Amino acid sequence: MAMAPLILALDFGGTKHTAGLFDLAGPKWLRRNRVFSPPGADANYDRNALLSLANQLLQGQKPSAIGVSFGGPVDALSGCVRLSHHVHGWEGIPLADLLQTEYGCIASVDNDANVAALGEYNFGAGKGLTSLLYITVSTGVGGGWVLDGKVWRGADGMAGEIGHMVVDPQGPVCLCGKRGCVERLASGPYMAQDAREALFNNASNGEILRKLCNEDLSRITGEMVSQAAASGDTIALKVLERGTWGLGVAIGNAANLMNPQRIILGGGVTKSGVLFWDGVRRAARITALPQINIDIIPAALGDDAPLWGAAALGIAALDWKNSS
Amino acid sequence: MAMAPLILALDFGGTKHTAGLFDLAGPKWLRRNRVFSPPGADANYDRNALLSLANQLLQGQKPSAIGVSFGGPVDALSGCVRLSHHVHGWEGIPLADLLQTEYGCIASVDNDANVAALGEYNFGAGKGLTSLLYITVSTGVGGGWVLDGKVWRGADGMAGEIGHMVVDPQGPVCLCGKRGCVERLASGPYMAQDAREALFNNASNGEILRKLCNEDLSRITGEMVSQAAASGDTIALKVLERGTWGLGVAIGNAANLMNPQRIILGGGVTKSGVLFWDGVRRAARITALPQINIDIIPAALGDDAPLWGAAALGIAALDWKNSS
Repeated sequence: MAMAPLILALDFGGTKHTAGLFDLAGPKWLRRNRVFSPPGADANYDRNALLSLANQLLQGQKPSAIGVSFGGPVDALSGCVRLSHHVHGWEGIPLADLLQTEYGCIASVDNDANVAALGEYNFGAGKGLTSLLYITVSTGVGGGWVLDGKVWRGADGMAGEIGHMVVDPQGPVCLCGKRGCVERLASGPYMAQDAREALFNNASNGEILRKLCNEDLSRITGEMVSQAAASGDTIALKVLERGTWGLGVAIGNAANLMNPQRIILGGGVTKSGVLFWDGVRRAARITALPQINIDIIPAALGDDAPLWGAAALGIAALDWKNSS
Repeated sequence: MAMAPLILALDFGGTKHTAGLFDLAGPKWLRRNRVFSPPGADANYDRNALLSLANQLLQGQKPSAIGVSFGGPVDALSGCVRLSHHVHGWEGIPLADLLQTEYGCIASVDNDANVAALGEYNFGAGKGLTSLLYITVSTGVGGGWVLDGKVWRGADGMAGEIGHMVVDPQGPVCLCGKRGCVERLASGPYMAQDAREALFNNASNGEILRKLCNEDLSRITGEMVSQAAASGDTIALKVLERGTWGLGVAIGNAANLMNPQRIILGGGVTKSGVLFWDGVRRAARITALPQINIDIIPAALGDDAPLWGAAALGIAALDWKNSS
């Protein structure tokens, strides 16, 4: 009996790596599993750990295609990793080639934002659409486009960098050197930093936030800012308002430029509750022209979006191979 | 003898309408001509004037397809005009249908920015590329995308509205009601207005600009601002600098989002000389991430870009008809 194609999906995160075996006949996941990196693990370690996990899942079966989500810049055309911001030793690794040699089948690699966009498009909050912008708001702010059913990567593979759209030229300086980038205003660590500074400068304000961090400002996280804002903490509210305003303006600007059918938001910061969503939607609605429909909704696949997307990437590679 | 297909290209401008007959066998223009609207002309008048011009050009021959550039919002899918900001009576006119009935061939209609983008892509500064952003900087600021060789129109046909990207949330109020839109900072009439106000408030500055307008501030145009800036007028320089900064930031933001191969600028304001181009390129380079290649060049087809693009639109409609 001929077997239905099996897709091996791999997600290299910062410290958490996931493998899954997707059965096209279902279509459904046959098996999924996860490994965590010990502190100081390098690219070599992570690669071996995830591949031995994949081999456990495969139980001797051969995948028909492999899709990979990588947490950092990738040259999707060649399947080479450009670098990892978190893990040493990934620079220039020809990941797609290595996997093709290892498993004897086609492999396709892209960065996590693009792959998550593809995952939401095929299996999540973007099902049935033809265009969407996926944005992850977490440690950083990144994005991925699906246009006409395909990932749009741009001429240098750099499309989707909405995190470094400037929305406030008089704003604070971002890691990238510019003022008022979305990431500088709306990412979790930067919102925590802004709250910390405001607390330091306003000894009489921010009681709720001070309690949440046990008066230890260094322990403040983006999550605490959201939580304190929801309870009415004035300092946390101000920081969250600026972040959601910045993200909303960027989304409105992106809508004016590209007019996608839907904007899908994922990542830890989007779990901040109603204040977050209201702020983002309000700023986006004001910024986009009235003729442009604005539909901003939460990601449906959560942290699994890259793995689902890796399956979609593998399926697309399979289709491409069969039709060419 | 079978004739090579003839494409009828029409460009409905604000007050200037152009028709051309494009011979696919050349490929080359067989004949082109232009009519001007008298003051107060309505949609009916303009349509009749351009069609009678088209009939003169056709000399009894039948076009194989028609492409139309329209100076205002259009529903490209249905070929219906949404409205004209300049000419009364265009609301809801089914222009493509009217032309199909009149000439018995397929007709395709789109707005002038999209059509000019297609013109530059096929015949001008975008030849040989696969993606570009075309921006016209003139009375307004508008844009059109070509991605993977096709016009990207977006879900509501509104893609390309870079003129209403917010680049300075503390900036002056735009016609659209928002602060600091690109169009508010960089369009010709708004730069003229900003110069006028600055001159009014600074009696001792702006000598060169005052001379150019013969001390009649109401006569100042965007062109005068560019001219005075080139001669070192401090007020004109400041206005032009803010305009080019705003446009450059918007281009850098668009590059971060979409990473097109090239950005092509057309329209009257782009004829302002080296100060304009330097200012735009500098701001765009700073705003885009360093990994993104930034290539900003002047449009090659000038004011004829929409007519060339209309020919390309007609050709595309012909291809589509033949392959479907």
